[in-house]
Amino acid sequence: MIDDRDGCPGLRGAIDAIDAIGPLDEAAMAAAAAHLGRLTKPPGSLGRLEELVVAVAGITGRPDAPVDRRVIVVAAGDHGVARQGVSAYPSAVTSQMVANFVEGGAAINVLAAASGASVIVVDVGVANPVPRVRRHPRRGGRLIRARVADGTADMTEGPAMERAAACRAIDVGIRLVEQLRSEGGLDLLGVGEMGIGNTTSASALVAALTGEPVARVTGRGTGIDDRTHARKVAAIKQSLAVNRPDPDDPIGVLAAVGGLEIAALVGLTLGAAAARIPVVLDGFITGAAALVAAAIAPGLPPRLIAAHRSTEPGHAIVLERLGLRPCLDLDLRLGEGSGAALAIGLIVAACRIRDEMATFESAAVSGPVEGASAAIRATSG
Amino acid sequence: MIDDRDGCPGLRGAIDAIDAIGPLDEAAMAAAAAHLGRLTKPPGSLGRLEELVVAVAGITGRPDAPVDRRVIVVAAGDHGVARQGVSAYPSAVTSQMVANFVEGGAAINVLAAASGASVIVVDVGVANPVPRVRRHPRRGGRLIRARVADGTADMTEGPAMERAAACRAIDVGIRLVEQLRSEGGLDLLGVGEMGIGNTTSASALVAALTGEPVARVTGRGTGIDDRTHARKVAAIKQSLAVNRPDPDDPIGVLAAVGGLEIAALVGLTLGAAAARIPVVLDGFITGAAALVAAAIAPGLPPRLIAAHRSTEPGHAIVLERLGLRPCLDLDLRLGEGSGAALAIGLIVAACRIRDEMATFESAAVSGPVEGASAAIRATSG
Repeated sequence: MIDDRDGCPGLRGAIDAIDAIGPLDEAAMAAAAAHLGRLTKPPGSLGRLEELVVAVAGITGRPDAPVDRRVIVVAAGDHGVARQGVSAYPSAVTSQMVANFVEGGAAINVLAAASGASVIVVDVGVANPVPRVRRHPRRGGRLIRARVADGTADMTEGPAMERAAACRAIDVGIRLVEQLRSEGGLDLLGVGEMGIGNTTSASALVAALTGEPVARVTGRGTGIDDRTHARKVAAIKQSLAVNRPDPDDPIGVLAAVGGLEIAALVGLTLGAAAARIPVVLDGFITGAAALVAAAIAPGLPPRLIAAHRSTEPGHAIVLERLGLRPCLDLDLRLGEGSGAALAIGLIVAACRIRDEMATFESAAVSGPVEGASAAIRATSG
Repeated sequence: MIDDRDGCPGLRGAIDAIDAIGPLDEAAMAAAAAHLGRLTKPPGSLGRLEELVVAVAGITGRPDAPVDRRVIVVAAGDHGVARQGVSAYPSAVTSQMVANFVEGGAAINVLAAASGASVIVVDVGVANPVPRVRRHPRRGGRLIRARVADGTADMTEGPAMERAAACRAIDVGIRLVEQLRSEGGLDLLGVGEMGIGNTTSASALVAALTGEPVARVTGRGTGIDDRTHARKVAAIKQSLAVNRPDPDDPIGVLAAVGGLEIAALVGLTLGAAAARIPVVLDGFITGAAALVAAAIAPGLPPRLIAAHRSTEPGHAIVLERLGLRPCLDLDLRLGEGSGAALAIGLIVAACRIRDEMATFESAAVSGPVEGASAAIRATSG
C-alpha cells in the first residue's frame, strides 16, 4: 500500500515503529490505576480525569509520564476548491490568520497560553504570501515555512494534488515531530489547522474513506448559509465523481480530495504516535486527518486523545470510527487547535492530580468501611 | 416564609438584594456578545465559551468583568444519618479530609491551583476535632472555624437540626461572602463541600423539594454496594416519613433533612448572587443547596453556573429544575468543588479570549464573503 518511491522517507519508519510498539502498555496502565487508587478520594471518583492519566500511561509506557513540554502545531494550507464558493471567508484569510497566529491575536494563542502550551504554525501550502509581522513575546506562534505548494488544485476538476506532494506534506509533519523532540523535547502534542475550504476537503475525505453519504458528513463550517451549503455538498459530490478515490489507498484518497495541511497532520499524528507521544486531536479536520492516518497505520487510534465533539455532523462519525470518546462537548467549531488546547488543560490537571495529591496513608485518612464500599473498580474503562 | 426571628440577619438582606437586581443585565450581555463578534473567528464558533462570557456579563452587569480573584469555598459538616451505615466511609473522614484540605493533599487543592483559585475550608459542623496540621504554602486551604454544632442529628429519628441552627449556618455563608469581598475582593466564587453522609441528605432534600421518588434521586455516593444503597434509600424514606417536610417552607426542609454545610452553601450562593458575583456550582450536593436557595429566592438560578453533570442520578433532576446546562460531563462524583475548579478554568479561558484576542480590524483579517455566511447569530443562546 505505502510505496517508498512515493517520496516520503519517514512514513515507512513511522508505520514500522507503530507496528513495533503494538498495543498500549498494560503494565504502565495498571500501575497508574493502582496509584490513583491510593489517593485521598473514593476510587474512580474523578471519572474521565483518571481515564486520561491511565491513557497517558498506556501510550507513553510510563505511569508517571511528564506532560511539561506541550506544543500545539497548527498546520496551514489553502484549498483550490475554495474558488467554488464553499466557504464564508475568502482564501486570503488563511495567510492573514497565519500572521495573526504569529502576532498572538487568535483564539489558539490565548487558549494555548491558558494551558501552558506553545504554538507552532507550519505553512505547508498557504496560497498567499504571509504578511511579515512581529511575533508576540509571550503567546505568539513560531512560524515554520515548509510550503510544498501554493495551495491545492480544485478537487472538483481533478486531484487536489499529486501523490508525491501529499507524501512530501506528510513528511513535513513527521520531520516536525523529530525536530521538536530534538530541540526541547515533546511530552504532549496538540494538533490544529487553518485553511479556508478545509471542512469541504475533510468532508470529502470522510465520505471517501467511510462510504457515508456526502450530505451526512457535510456541515456549516465557519457558518455558511443554505445556498453555500448546497454548493459545498455539490462540490464534494463532484470531487468524488471526478477522482473516484479508492478507500483502500489512503494516500490516494488524500491526494485526490485532501489538503496539504491535512497531509501534514497525518504525518504529525503518525510521527508522534511512533515516538509514544500522546496526540490530542482537535475537531473535525484533525479527526479526518487521523482517519487517513489510521487507514495507513491501523494501530494508531488508541494513541490518540479526542479533545472535543464539534458541531460538524461528520465529526461524530469520525470519532465513532476511531473509537474515541471526546473529553469536552462545548459546541466548538473554530478549529486552529482551540479544543485541543482546552483538553490539554484537562490532561495537565489530571496529571497534577496524579503527581500532587496525598495518599490515604500519607494524609492519615481512613479508608472505606468494611463491606460498605463497592468493589474497587479499574479506572481505565 | 422567611422569618427574621429565625436568627439569620443577613438572609432578608440577600433576598431583597436579589429581588432588587432583577433579571440579568441585558445591555451588558449584548455588549459582550457584540465584542465577541468582532474577534478574529467566525461568529459563535467558540460555542459554550462565548456563552460563559455573556453569562458573566449578565450576572455582573459588566461586559468586561474581571475574573482574577477566584475562590473556592469548601463547606464541611457531619451528618447524624451516617450512623445508619449509608456511606462507604466513616464520619471520621470528614475531619481528616478537612485537615487534608489545609495540608494541600486533596483533589480540590490540586485542581483549584491548576485554575488559579484559592481554597477556603469552612467548618460549619464537623463532628470530630480537626487535626492541627501545617498549611501547604502554595495550595493549602485556609481553615475558617464557624462551627454551629458538632454535626447534625440523625434525620431518621427527627429533624437534622433546629430551624435556628439552619439559619445560623446560612448566615455563616452570607457573612463569609462579605468577608471575602472586604478582604481581597471576589470576582468568581466556586462552591464545594465535604461531609460523610451528605449525598443521603442531598437526596432527601431533592425528594422533599421536587416530589421525585426517593429511588430516582438516590445514587451511589462515594461508591457504595447494593446493600448499603438499599439502607440509604430506606433511611431517606424514613427521614421524610418522620419529619414530613413542607416543600413550601425551604428552611424547614433544610432543617429537617439538610446539613450544616449545605445550609452554609445556601448562604454562600445567596450572598454571592446578591453581590452580583457569579457562583460556580459543583455537583449534586451544591446543586441541592442551590435548589433550597432558589426556593428561598426565585430570582437566583440565572446567576449560577453549573460546572458539570455528576454521575449521581439526582443531579440531572436538580440541573433541570434550576434550568442550568452544565459546562462539563466528565463522570465526576468526588465533590469538594473539584468540578467547579475545572469549570473555573474554562471560565477564565473564556474571559481571556474576551480580553486578549485581536479583532478583525486590528489584525487586518478579511471578514465574511458577501452572501456566503449565515446571519450572525447572538451567542447568548
